[in-house]
Amino acid sequence: MEQEQKRYEDVIAGRNAVMEALKSGRPLDRVMVAKGDRQGSIGPIIAKCRQLNVPIKEVDSRKLDFMAQNHQGVIAVAACKEYAKLEDLFALAEERGEKPFFIICDELEDPHNLGAILRTAEAAGAHGVIVPQRRSVGLTSTVYKASAGAVEYVPVARVTNITETIKELKKRGVWVYGLDMDGETWCRTDMRDAMALVVGSEGRGISRLVKEQCDFILSMPMAGQINSLNASVACGIVLYEVARQRQGIPAINQ
Amino acid sequence: MEQEQKRYEDVIAGRNAVMEALKSGRPLDRVMVAKGDRQGSIGPIIAKCRQLNVPIKEVDSRKLDFMAQNHQGVIAVAACKEYAKLEDLFALAEERGEKPFFIICDELEDPHNLGAILRTAEAAGAHGVIVPQRRSVGLTSTVYKASAGAVEYVPVARVTNITETIKELKKRGVWVYGLDMDGETWCRTDMRDAMALVVGSEGRGISRLVKEQCDFILSMPMAGQINSLNASVACGIVLYEVARQRQGIPAINQ
Repeated sequence: MEQEQKRYEDVIAGRNAVMEALKSGRPLDRVMVAKGDRQGSIGPIIAKCRQLNVPIKEVDSRKLDFMAQNHQGVIAVAACKEYAKLEDLFALAEERGEKPFFIICDELEDPHNLGAILRTAEAAGAHGVIVPQRRSVGLTSTVYKASAGAVEYVPVARVTNITETIKELKKRGVWVYGLDMDGETWCRTDMRDAMALVVGSEGRGISRLVKEQCDFILSMPMAGQINSLNASVACGIVLYEVARQRQGIPAINQ
Repeated sequence: MEQEQKRYEDVIAGRNAVMEALKSGRPLDRVMVAKGDRQGSIGPIIAKCRQLNVPIKEVDSRKLDFMAQNHQGVIAVAACKEYAKLEDLFALAEERGEKPFFIICDELEDPHNLGAILRTAEAAGAHGVIVPQRRSVGLTSTVYKASAGAVEYVPVARVTNITETIKELKKRGVWVYGLDMDGETWCRTDMRDAMALVVGSEGRGISRLVKEQCDFILSMPMAGQINSLNASVACGIVLYEVARQRQGIPAINQ
């Protein structure tokens, strides 16, 4: 609910408005179409979305009613920044002469968490963030604000399938670390080689299929009763451990 | 605005309802009274607040109108948990046979940040969190949810003056570390002795007066364009460095 309300400022409603937004090249997070509504000018809108690789989501028309008036069965949600391609993330690492340092957000739902992760990623020197097209918060204006503008500097690649992307990363020599319970203590692992950190969704953590693809599972010791940390806090702790190791900052040991 | 709306479920409006809430011993975050309204039954409510040490805030009556109908000039905001005293935090450290490990939140505004900090504090083994009475988010239901229930396990002490509290902590042998720019690298400092970490507000960071009282300033290196991290993320990074040092977990060094 909160997420939806926050997105109002990102909403472009109505057939002409959506078509114009598509034509203008404005970055779009997705286009939402009322279920069963395939008449008239919806056809060309769908075709344009496919051409531009903008995801189309079929939703109940009441959901559109809730988001805007006079939507004529179609709403586009603007993105605050153009999505990058996986290749752009590798290119940034190469440009900086560094080994890849990526973050994969597996079905993150809270825009404040994605924003905070982008902010920490930028500050820790990561080369980009990877999000899935489905069941994930996109680059909305709330994410932009929560990132304190870091969205401008960190490329965010959107992929159709996280599991496939992980397989590709591994083929290209990237070690994949998942954040979950009962893994290795986060600071006991050398993360100076090419690496990607997988952060799971707020409620369910990393999905089983994704977890099976990870080379390592990392955990923070939990001293109390609570069994997990906030997603962006846990991610931040590991990102700064990577930054520490890569920058060669020695930590105090007994 | 978002904060206010979230607090609706914590609102107790009207003279009888507020008086009953006070008498019942229900934990209250504060009582808000319309400016200039001192007639009739408001007197005993104010007296009862003073007796129970519940802060009273005078506000414009339009603010009350926005929060509830039929408020009769007085609204109490419920707290999700009773506030602790500074002494309780020291007692918890002693009970565990550990050196004090506290967090001081200096005018934090976002309930999601306070919640995430409580969650990390509990998991990292801290003995409590200190917040000021004024200009700070309190223990609202949003904080409870964001803490994933950690509020139940971490005492939160509310103090009238953070600067005075820091002076007292220092007298009692607690080292005080502030999170700010241009300080020492966070993991280069030994934090195994009695310590408190000061986290500043989201927009302005630590206030000058509070900063002057800190024994050390800690910073994370910022590799990019952004010059600060989200308050709960930055706090989490330091809390887990303290946990690592105290639990004797060796970190990888070159």
